[in-house]
Amino acid sequence: MTVSAESDLVSQIRSAGLAADGEGESRLRLLFAGVKLFSEIGYHETTTRHLSQEAGMSPAALYVHYRSKAELLGAIILLGHRQVVDVLESAVAEVGEDPVSRLRALARAFVSWHAAHIAVARISVLHLDAVPPEEFEQIRRQRARIVELFENEIRAGERGGGMEVPDVHYVALAIISLGLDLVRWYSPERRITPAEIGELYADLAVRMVLNR
Amino acid sequence: MTVSAESDLVSQIRSAGLAADGEGESRLRLLFAGVKLFSEIGYHETTTRHLSQEAGMSPAALYVHYRSKAELLGAIILLGHRQVVDVLESAVAEVGEDPVSRLRALARAFVSWHAAHIAVARISVLHLDAVPPEEFEQIRRQRARIVELFENEIRAGERGGGMEVPDVHYVALAIISLGLDLVRWYSPERRITPAEIGELYADLAVRMVLNR
Repeated sequence: MTVSAESDLVSQIRSAGLAADGEGESRLRLLFAGVKLFSEIGYHETTTRHLSQEAGMSPAALYVHYRSKAELLGAIILLGHRQVVDVLESAVAEVGEDPVSRLRALARAFVSWHAAHIAVARISVLHLDAVPPEEFEQIRRQRARIVELFENEIRAGERGGGMEVPDVHYVALAIISLGLDLVRWYSPERRITPAEIGELYADLAVRMVLNR
Repeated sequence: MTVSAESDLVSQIRSAGLAADGEGESRLRLLFAGVKLFSEIGYHETTTRHLSQEAGMSPAALYVHYRSKAELLGAIILLGHRQVVDVLESAVAEVGEDPVSRLRALARAFVSWHAAHIAVARISVLHLDAVPPEEFEQIRRQRARIVELFENEIRAGERGGGMEVPDVHYVALAIISLGLDLVRWYSPERRITPAEIGELYADLAVRMVLNR
């Protein structure tokens, strides 16, 4: 599935924080090549030869930076997750103490990030199982942090913010599902923008938790 | 990821309607082998030799029934989707005319089916892109029917059933996301049963649509 043109991918990767890795131009070129090829022709269909050609280097040079295609995949998914955590922490820092406003800000940021970075988001959702154990453990920690951010606001809301839910953990997972599952159907050609779907699903997240 | 023991898979496949295909014992054995191997060792990691060995037949005999591994994948996913449509249509047939009750029944049935048939559900969500065009088109029609079933009840609820939503289509997709995304995290070892997660998420679905 062709998710987007290369120019979009470049801005997506820079915006996803993949340029902030600080490991030099070659490593960055490989990350770009990975996002482009994994999203356009598929992770399993991409060979290390494809990757080195796309990045303009020899296959041997590739292995200097990443020991395997799976390790490159893990690096892409980990950088994406780190940026999601940053975006969520910034989103709650910008609003006050009201748990409903904070949960709305988290849901809006999470959902719109996934729509705006659909190439990286699709790779993360579909190919996490292929990541090597070391990178997987780091990604798992970022995911636990994401769940915790949502759970914290629901718990605060239950203590006096007008929320009441059947189960804090599973409601947090449900809100996260709204952002993750859109990688199945969202495309930039849809009539709804990332900001709009973020706003709409943030409204649904708030509806899920309010005490009626 | 080992999703379940073989004995569970057998009951899952029978329950998922894969035995109702009417194309004989060999075809059924291949469907069983596909669900088992695709869920336990992965679709891309499974070869046609693995499949024919698991089904107790020669590689040549496999091709009599399915032209490729991808066609077998398509058959498994299509049968799963057909059973979901049957389950949803039965679920609404069993309740009255109240749109809230009908939407709750749809969401409960959809979510609990995905948890109870986690092997088939995971294969469907993760590998739909690998299905050949002919089977893909049939699956696409089943998916459109699933979306339509949810949209119908939301529209009915907006006409006088106490519902009010920001967008019928995207709210239907959000409710469906609750069922689909659980294939990422649900396992039979979780402390919550398929019936319980179905009930919990049906409650969230109703919260999403009620006019407050």
